[in-house]
Amino acid sequence: MITECPVTRPEGERVLLGHGAGGRLTAELLEGTVLPAFGGRAGPLEDAALLPGSGDLVMTTDGFVVSPLFFPGGDIGSLAVHGTVNDLAMRGAEPLALSVALIVEEGLELGLLEAVLRSLGEAARGVGVPVITGDTKVVGRGAADRLFITTTGIGRRLPGLSPSAAGARPGDAVLLSGPIGLHGTAVLSTREGLGFEADIASDTRPLHRLVAALAPLGDRLRVLRDPTRGGLAAALNEVARDSGVVIDVDERAVPVPPPVAAACDLLGLDPLHVANEGCMTVFVAPDAADAALAALRSLPEGTGAVRVGDVLPADGHPGRVVLRTAVGARRVIDMPLGEQLPRIC
Amino acid sequence: MITECPVTRPEGERVLLGHGAGGRLTAELLEGTVLPAFGGRAGPLEDAALLPGSGDLVMTTDGFVVSPLFFPGGDIGSLAVHGTVNDLAMRGAEPLALSVALIVEEGLELGLLEAVLRSLGEAARGVGVPVITGDTKVVGRGAADRLFITTTGIGRRLPGLSPSAAGARPGDAVLLSGPIGLHGTAVLSTREGLGFEADIASDTRPLHRLVAALAPLGDRLRVLRDPTRGGLAAALNEVARDSGVVIDVDERAVPVPPPVAAACDLLGLDPLHVANEGCMTVFVAPDAADAALAALRSLPEGTGAVRVGDVLPADGHPGRVVLRTAVGARRVIDMPLGEQLPRIC
Repeated sequence: MITECPVTRPEGERVLLGHGAGGRLTAELLEGTVLPAFGGRAGPLEDAALLPGSGDLVMTTDGFVVSPLFFPGGDIGSLAVHGTVNDLAMRGAEPLALSVALIVEEGLELGLLEAVLRSLGEAARGVGVPVITGDTKVVGRGAADRLFITTTGIGRRLPGLSPSAAGARPGDAVLLSGPIGLHGTAVLSTREGLGFEADIASDTRPLHRLVAALAPLGDRLRVLRDPTRGGLAAALNEVARDSGVVIDVDERAVPVPPPVAAACDLLGLDPLHVANEGCMTVFVAPDAADAALAALRSLPEGTGAVRVGDVLPADGHPGRVVLRTAVGARRVIDMPLGEQLPRIC
Repeated sequence: MITECPVTRPEGERVLLGHGAGGRLTAELLEGTVLPAFGGRAGPLEDAALLPGSGDLVMTTDGFVVSPLFFPGGDIGSLAVHGTVNDLAMRGAEPLALSVALIVEEGLELGLLEAVLRSLGEAARGVGVPVITGDTKVVGRGAADRLFITTTGIGRRLPGLSPSAAGARPGDAVLLSGPIGLHGTAVLSTREGLGFEADIASDTRPLHRLVAALAPLGDRLRVLRDPTRGGLAAALNEVARDSGVVIDVDERAVPVPPPVAAACDLLGLDPLHVANEGCMTVFVAPDAADAALAALRSLPEGTGAVRVGDVLPADGHPGRVVLRTAVGARRVIDMPLGEQLPRIC
């Protein structure tokens, strides 16, 4: 009878906060530990996976551990719905159903739990997706920090769409559906009492309607990616890596709201590394750029859509993201290493 | 901008450990807080839900918070697979795909995480179900107890099967696929250092093959239920409630291994309330009882299958479970109130 844990790693190696930050450490954990255990192959890591033998159905799962539970613009309940709906949308899928699993710390105010669940329910109804099943576990005081929510979503791909992180091609236009940096700075400002809460609200929102508006582009829509953990820098690096291309971004074109810039300045953060929960990068064929921008701007959640860059051939440097700065210099934007903003989603 | 949590409940009310125990408090939380927030209707609460618009696909989700992570007979990784596969199986479904979401405490040994994931991967391969997507979140030291896993499963119902907690009818035979009490007492004994670890191992195992063996029964297979949290008492009470019947159980027929009985004696637990992770109750039409027992006993995981009782008409007491004791007395088996065994799964 095995009761001892069969450990093979040197004892000193431990999980760091950065392993959950969506950057290089996360990729290492995934490639070095998680995928080998599951017999997974290396390949593009998508936001949602095709369900085997089920045609156009996709599945995604996400744990939400954001602290505090309520922040300007949202809360863990609405975030859990939007994050999962968006992961489906990034595969070109409309949401069909959600499941919700709660891990609750003993002693959490029931009224608070109720408020979170009400917000979650409202967000789901707003998207038009039913919560069809769930689970609740309670752990003792001190064994969890108040409330964690894991949401899993099933969606159906829109006909003709098959965006993939591996789909970018030289010449493609790189669009952004709205300003960056709002979610991460809103949460951090609230948590640390920095006083930006009056000026900054999370951008948490569902993106599936924007994706539906892009559906007429068909296979000229190459990549959809929402820059959550690790921010725009991580999202673009993943696409550059999985597509084997260079992505060239014009710094002046990237919309950073002034309060976000001020908060990042104070905190020593790069806005490109800050998590977002309501915008996405869209890669389209060159001749589809104008139509895509018009489609995005036709909806309230896409009024701020802009073109921020272009896809270039690899030229010996596949996987590279380059920023053209305001003064004309060019600098490489690396994958963020680890954790700048723990428990941001 | 809402940053305050809009709480409606009196401040004193808090989540108790018992709210996660699978008994009456869990039902109260579900019916009073969770379902209203999601706009859910009262009705049979099944282990897995039908995916809307997707024919015969079902979905289930489960959080695993067991402590310790390794216990006699299993670990949190294999348990996470078996528990989810079994929830699908209880709806008559074979597993198609799993997702795995990890919440990890900063500082967890990487080798331990690897061992858990390896076990999870092996369990999934054993069942023949792929892990197709996942998520990893890391929270700071003290914000979680080492490792929580939330597994979501998608399955396809076997043709002709539609077992439901509401499907029991007077006259049906009540079967049990194997002995009860092993999982809960194994975990608790390890955790509390009671010294039963040498005699008791968790029964954690997948039940989908047993269900496939029962498939030829078609609609004569009425109910499948695995008695996890809350034990056999909770499972039978749920079926009695959702089917509006009385369930009559013969105490002498319920298999309780002697070490389980001894451990329960020491701990002051009722074996009927102790969680299981590898047996199930099966309700079948009277003329199918022998065929069902033969089918169960044809597989290693069902060699201990027995008939433990019968379904009786409600007679003014729908929802009641009655135990005929060894000395011929009859006592009502209530739904367990709350938590006897926190973090057992």
